[in-house]
Amino acid sequence: MHPRSIFHFIGLLVLFLGLSMAAPLAVSLVFQDGSTESLALSMGVAVTAGLLLSLATRSREDVQLSHRDGAAVVSLGWASAGLVGTLPYLLSGAVPGLTNAYFESLSGFTTTGASILSNIEALPEGILLWRSLTQWFGGMGIIVLSVAILPFLGIGGMQLYKAEVPSPVVDKLKPRISETAKTLWKIYILFTGMEILLLLGGGMPLFESACHAFCTMPTGGFSPMNASIAHYDSSYFDGVILVFMLVAGVNFSLHYRFLKGETRIVAKDPELLTFLGLFAVFTLAVTLDIYGSVYQSLSGAFRYASFQVGSILTTTGFATADFDQWPACSRLILLCSMFVGGMAGSTGGGIKIMRIVLLAKHAYREVLRIIHPHAVISVKLGRTPVGEDVLSSVWGFFLLFLGLFIVSTLVMAALGLDLITAFSSVAASIGNTGPGLGAVGPVRNYLGIPDAGKWVLIFCMLLGRLEVYTVILLLVPAFWRK
Amino acid sequence: MHPRSIFHFIGLLVLFLGLSMAAPLAVSLVFQDGSTESLALSMGVAVTAGLLLSLATRSREDVQLSHRDGAAVVSLGWASAGLVGTLPYLLSGAVPGLTNAYFESLSGFTTTGASILSNIEALPEGILLWRSLTQWFGGMGIIVLSVAILPFLGIGGMQLYKAEVPSPVVDKLKPRISETAKTLWKIYILFTGMEILLLLGGGMPLFESACHAFCTMPTGGFSPMNASIAHYDSSYFDGVILVFMLVAGVNFSLHYRFLKGETRIVAKDPELLTFLGLFAVFTLAVTLDIYGSVYQSLSGAFRYASFQVGSILTTTGFATADFDQWPACSRLILLCSMFVGGMAGSTGGGIKIMRIVLLAKHAYREVLRIIHPHAVISVKLGRTPVGEDVLSSVWGFFLLFLGLFIVSTLVMAALGLDLITAFSSVAASIGNTGPGLGAVGPVRNYLGIPDAGKWVLIFCMLLGRLEVYTVILLLVPAFWRK
Repeated sequence: MHPRSIFHFIGLLVLFLGLSMAAPLAVSLVFQDGSTESLALSMGVAVTAGLLLSLATRSREDVQLSHRDGAAVVSLGWASAGLVGTLPYLLSGAVPGLTNAYFESLSGFTTTGASILSNIEALPEGILLWRSLTQWFGGMGIIVLSVAILPFLGIGGMQLYKAEVPSPVVDKLKPRISETAKTLWKIYILFTGMEILLLLGGGMPLFESACHAFCTMPTGGFSPMNASIAHYDSSYFDGVILVFMLVAGVNFSLHYRFLKGETRIVAKDPELLTFLGLFAVFTLAVTLDIYGSVYQSLSGAFRYASFQVGSILTTTGFATADFDQWPACSRLILLCSMFVGGMAGSTGGGIKIMRIVLLAKHAYREVLRIIHPHAVISVKLGRTPVGEDVLSSVWGFFLLFLGLFIVSTLVMAALGLDLITAFSSVAASIGNTGPGLGAVGPVRNYLGIPDAGKWVLIFCMLLGRLEVYTVILLLVPAFWRK
Repeated sequence: MHPRSIFHFIGLLVLFLGLSMAAPLAVSLVFQDGSTESLALSMGVAVTAGLLLSLATRSREDVQLSHRDGAAVVSLGWASAGLVGTLPYLLSGAVPGLTNAYFESLSGFTTTGASILSNIEALPEGILLWRSLTQWFGGMGIIVLSVAILPFLGIGGMQLYKAEVPSPVVDKLKPRISETAKTLWKIYILFTGMEILLLLGGGMPLFESACHAFCTMPTGGFSPMNASIAHYDSSYFDGVILVFMLVAGVNFSLHYRFLKGETRIVAKDPELLTFLGLFAVFTLAVTLDIYGSVYQSLSGAFRYASFQVGSILTTTGFATADFDQWPACSRLILLCSMFVGGMAGSTGGGIKIMRIVLLAKHAYREVLRIIHPHAVISVKLGRTPVGEDVLSSVWGFFLLFLGLFIVSTLVMAALGLDLITAFSSVAASIGNTGPGLGAVGPVRNYLGIPDAGKWVLIFCMLLGRLEVYTVILLLVPAFWRK
């Protein structure tokens, strides 16, 4: 372990976040929204703290971070970013109290999108932009994490993606991160820009277009509007945002390959096909369920079903309807979608399609093994056989995810929440989705959750975002031994 | 496959069930309860059908059944027993309609204990005894299944128990079944007798004592009383029944070893310790949750918590309190208990303690593997290392169980049930527990579930009882190929 280097990195991160506050600061000046002073102060505090920390931990030699350092960096990095993110909220008085501010901030950086705000539209534009940017930066972090760090830590089957990283694969962490980051961030920025232009083209004001695009690509789901996307009641905006949510739910390495012209490989990707297949099946089922009972036109039912399924499956969390009022079957499908989540290597949360596919194939393999006890049957993803160690690590991930979900739900229930709120608030947090059912439904918010419960959900957001293992590793004594 | 032998076995089973109707017939004569005629007719039909089928499929050569035949026999056997069980219900008019009658009957033979009866006490004694006997016979079947068949089919990790079968292990099915059956059935009968005596000693009438004992040892949970065990409001009866529920939740091979004097081995059994540990922890948590909020005395809270936890964890389903009115956390713990279930090799349902232990250990192993990527770390149960193939098969079981649970819950929700009823009715059926929450709570029943939903639950009961794989195998084309 290299604690000095780890803290140096954290210092740089804090410095970067502080500098990035220049954008909301500029916006607050343009809109004269009254948040200029508090944003300037936040920026000053963050830049100073970042500078001091990075300078104090500066080192002459170029230390190569190990994978173990990588795990510590990401956990500590996300937690610290959450702390920096509270500054504008607290100093402007937009969010009352540290618990609420940290909840809102970490919900941003983990791209969860769960909010404690009751009247979002009352907030100054500068603060709203900062809120959107926490998600956008969070998404950038995830791309690096899931393509450059998790595969090499061998977490939850992500080692499968080692070969797919679009950069020279070397065993040291630093050069890989920077190479990968450059390539995939360009794609991320490109899509964000495209979405802004398309929303602008449809007549959405620039500020709102930017805020929504900043929260779509990281599958975040914060909206500057109280009613989320339902505010616009426009099938054009619904369609544009749905498409970009789905794009954000796709492995960014596939986008890279697609842009390089390897369309054949992309079109045959088994995880992509499953992702689109699940989206289609879930949309169909929900459409049929809400057609007649909630919406009187089939096209209306399809429009709201597809948006909500796309939003929850990719774990974005934007809403165009109060799905908490939908029939039980639709709500259950959306709950399942929260658990499934996007593709591995996307900015989406949840268990991830790749893992669901491998788990299902493994279960079927075991049925065949009973019939043919002596046959060697390997599980394949597409045409590639998947090693037993990878399967084993996927199972480990799945059980940890499920176990922590159950324990957290029990704690939330013990804190006095009803069953459905307890269940869905944890599902929406550990899956990084945002809105749940019941008291945390899409037209409600997390303000009423007791403080202790908010901290449980904060922990769940971090667990989900860092693929459980990265956080759990830090709690195992063996991790700290040399 | 030997279809002739399979049907011969089914014929013998039907014949046996028919002959066993002599007991309720005798009881109906004693009580003059008006069901004598319908029971005699049921007996006649079953005995005739059984005789005809077994004679028609008689074979001169002594065919040795393969393991594949074993899987077909158990699925078909349970389904046929369910059919025979409907005769007394339908002919006496005690249960209206085939769907209800099959539901009640299969709920008996799978030792689930879910009932569609609103006024149980209004039923003739002969029918009530038959209802209890369906569970008792079901329990006998499970003992054979889980100790003599599943380990050799290699289902869901049950291969671990190959060595524990208290009989000369040979590769052919028949001698093993009969040897094992004799030994373990004696223990089963012994415990049933002990419970009857203890209940009698406390002043419970003989008929009711017998009915309750017949439904405790198979972890069934049918009671001849509308209010289940709450009817007696006696801490003595609560205590006796709780102890025997826990006894029934223990691997019967351990009872055998205990009676042989191998108490040291029994006391160190890791699955037994986990079972008792979970019982203690769940009881403690529920006690604290309901103390003050539901019960004003700590001893009262403990009494009702321990009984309900014991009943649900062992998947028996007797009730001394309407736990559907308890706080969310207690209801959630009981829901979790339904999934956990008893020990492997017991008459309990659910996922089974052994599998939960292996899954948890495997997940922890994967954490260690990330820290020490090149170390070989084996998962152990007690001191015995568990093979990767066993782990793999446990995972397969777990995913099939979970996947079928989710799909069934979706279907129940699509049929119009609310979320909690849909969720808990499937959990209580696939876990073979009986009572759930909401509309199928402990003081309510399954009569109001739509017919299609009853068939879904019937399928779930069978899936859960036959450890999922045994039923799923029959649906895979490869199973039927030579």
